[in-house]
Amino acid sequence: MGSLETERKIVGWAATDSTGHLAPYTYSLRDTGPEDVDIKVISCGVCHTDIHQIKKDLGMSHYPMVPGHEVVGEVVEVGSDVTKFNVGDVVGVGVIVGCKNCHPCKSEIEQYCNKKIWSYSDVYTDGKPTQGGFAASMVVDQKFVVKIPDGMAAEQVAPLLCAGVTVYSPLKHFGLMESGLRGGILGLGGVGHMGVKIAKAMGHVTVISSSDKKREEAMEHLGADEYLVSSDVESMQKAADQLDYIIDTVPVVHPLEPYLSLLKLDGKLILMGVINAPLQFVSPMVMLGRKSITGSFIGSMKETEEMLEFCKEKGLASMIEVIKMDYINTAFERLEKNDVRYRFVVDVAGSKLIP
Amino acid sequence: MGSLETERKIVGWAATDSTGHLAPYTYSLRDTGPEDVDIKVISCGVCHTDIHQIKKDLGMSHYPMVPGHEVVGEVVEVGSDVTKFNVGDVVGVGVIVGCKNCHPCKSEIEQYCNKKIWSYSDVYTDGKPTQGGFAASMVVDQKFVVKIPDGMAAEQVAPLLCAGVTVYSPLKHFGLMESGLRGGILGLGGVGHMGVKIAKAMGHVTVISSSDKKREEAMEHLGADEYLVSSDVESMQKAADQLDYIIDTVPVVHPLEPYLSLLKLDGKLILMGVINAPLQFVSPMVMLGRKSITGSFIGSMKETEEMLEFCKEKGLASMIEVIKMDYINTAFERLEKNDVRYRFVVDVAGSKLIP
Repeated sequence: MGSLETERKIVGWAATDSTGHLAPYTYSLRDTGPEDVDIKVISCGVCHTDIHQIKKDLGMSHYPMVPGHEVVGEVVEVGSDVTKFNVGDVVGVGVIVGCKNCHPCKSEIEQYCNKKIWSYSDVYTDGKPTQGGFAASMVVDQKFVVKIPDGMAAEQVAPLLCAGVTVYSPLKHFGLMESGLRGGILGLGGVGHMGVKIAKAMGHVTVISSSDKKREEAMEHLGADEYLVSSDVESMQKAADQLDYIIDTVPVVHPLEPYLSLLKLDGKLILMGVINAPLQFVSPMVMLGRKSITGSFIGSMKETEEMLEFCKEKGLASMIEVIKMDYINTAFERLEKNDVRYRFVVDVAGSKLIP
Repeated sequence: MGSLETERKIVGWAATDSTGHLAPYTYSLRDTGPEDVDIKVISCGVCHTDIHQIKKDLGMSHYPMVPGHEVVGEVVEVGSDVTKFNVGDVVGVGVIVGCKNCHPCKSEIEQYCNKKIWSYSDVYTDGKPTQGGFAASMVVDQKFVVKIPDGMAAEQVAPLLCAGVTVYSPLKHFGLMESGLRGGILGLGGVGHMGVKIAKAMGHVTVISSSDKKREEAMEHLGADEYLVSSDVESMQKAADQLDYIIDTVPVVHPLEPYLSLLKLDGKLILMGVINAPLQFVSPMVMLGRKSITGSFIGSMKETEEMLEFCKEKGLASMIEVIKMDYINTAFERLEKNDVRYRFVVDVAGSKLIP
């Protein structure tokens, strides 16, 4: 119950400029406030957004920056008013750690808070930088911490806290979890591969890809029901008007019309790639089938909890490559080339943070 | 009950080529089949789509073509199996007159039928051309005919059968009729002006325009609650994140982002303009507020009936300029210049069809 304790020094791996190179960095953790949970990090997933942040691709980056927003750890201390967690619990932290006071935050749609505080590369309410999960510990308000269901392995769960809930949230929100629906997944990366698994657990799923290269992977290893090559005009025409939704995880500019044509009446194209160059479509493509182009951003804390229970119940695990902390710079290089199947997860607790 | 009667010759005003010039044209009406209603036309609205059709702008036009798809008339004969109508009823016909046999047609979403038969410039099930409402009579299957509620004037009702239901349908379908919601209308033409009236009857409505010119018209005559000039950066910023939906009736290419920014969380941008050149947006604009870009196409027969009752109950009338048939070519010229407030309606019954 350490709100009066002195500051603690810990070590994380930080980028100090836009080269994005991470190296050990010592910094202070705030005291555990009344609503705070002090978490010893076990595992932390490596998300593509981390690359954008460390390299300042999105315009706003605070250095030194300890990235990592798919964090699983063990509770080592709780604040005096913490009711949700006990010391020893295994918990998760995702993309945001605040604000908690606004209407969206009080309405269980924290992800759409306009004053959201990011887990790292942001400034906390105490005026100090937020730092992420590639570190020994994090102190996080209990509102932004979820309990990991018993029996789920830390390294498997880490990617679910961002990639998993990013897929689960729109399927839940838009009423697409009903069995009998047909979904499509565009793009097989960290989010896309969880998309196939989660959508398959709900219904029928088609993987749509630009080439035939990933057919075996999609069908045999991820469990897709169908595989569609977008450059195969005849197959695309045959598949028209059949999907209830498409989760589009492609992170670069691409035409939308081939995918809109696959949707049936009232179908939804759900964008998940942050693409700053414009996407295009012609209006009759949405009007004549009342189709929607929409998007979604991570998920709420409640949806994160639900998603974890869903994955546990359905036996869904992420496909990961576990690495040690000192491999992180190589991991970022490989991730930029899409050379990972499908998510790197850092075994933080098993790494020497000071080599 | 004339299914065995001989063909009837009638006069309509037809375009014979892509100059789009209309002139009197004599043609045969099919016999009144068992499910058909023979309608003597009273009034017929002039829609912007008529211009596209007569000038072959959309690629597929059948000449000679009698346009007109906002038709109000009086039933003069009914087929042997017609149960919905009696001789003497005042009825309406809109944009489609078939197919009636497919899943959408049997599910009260006829407007999304893939085999839909247009009221004119199409081929009916008997292999003969369909012809529209700028004519003495029409024969239409009862499924695609609606009863006009007692007490509504024919010329006022005509524009509701396309422009009115085009606005009503998405507001109904997307659950936007609840009081307390805030809507926006972009574009003040035939559809837009009915949009303001219908949206106002449901809740709060803001007209969004590129200049200040239509402020008085929007506020004083159409009853808008607010007026927003899209080029006024400060006002647009103040108005951000406030609208539940925007009905976008602009029929030419325009940026979407200024309007997406006006939408609140889960807000919908509903496109109604058939624009064949691409529209653009950047993905974070939809993702970060779970906003949707969608569209809608006219409405179902059931929605048309509901919309008519709604307009009657709320006392909503279209704003029209009534013309005679021989003014139609001038009316098209003026409509192309947006020089009408807001819909021409031809007094067909009061016109000499053969001058």
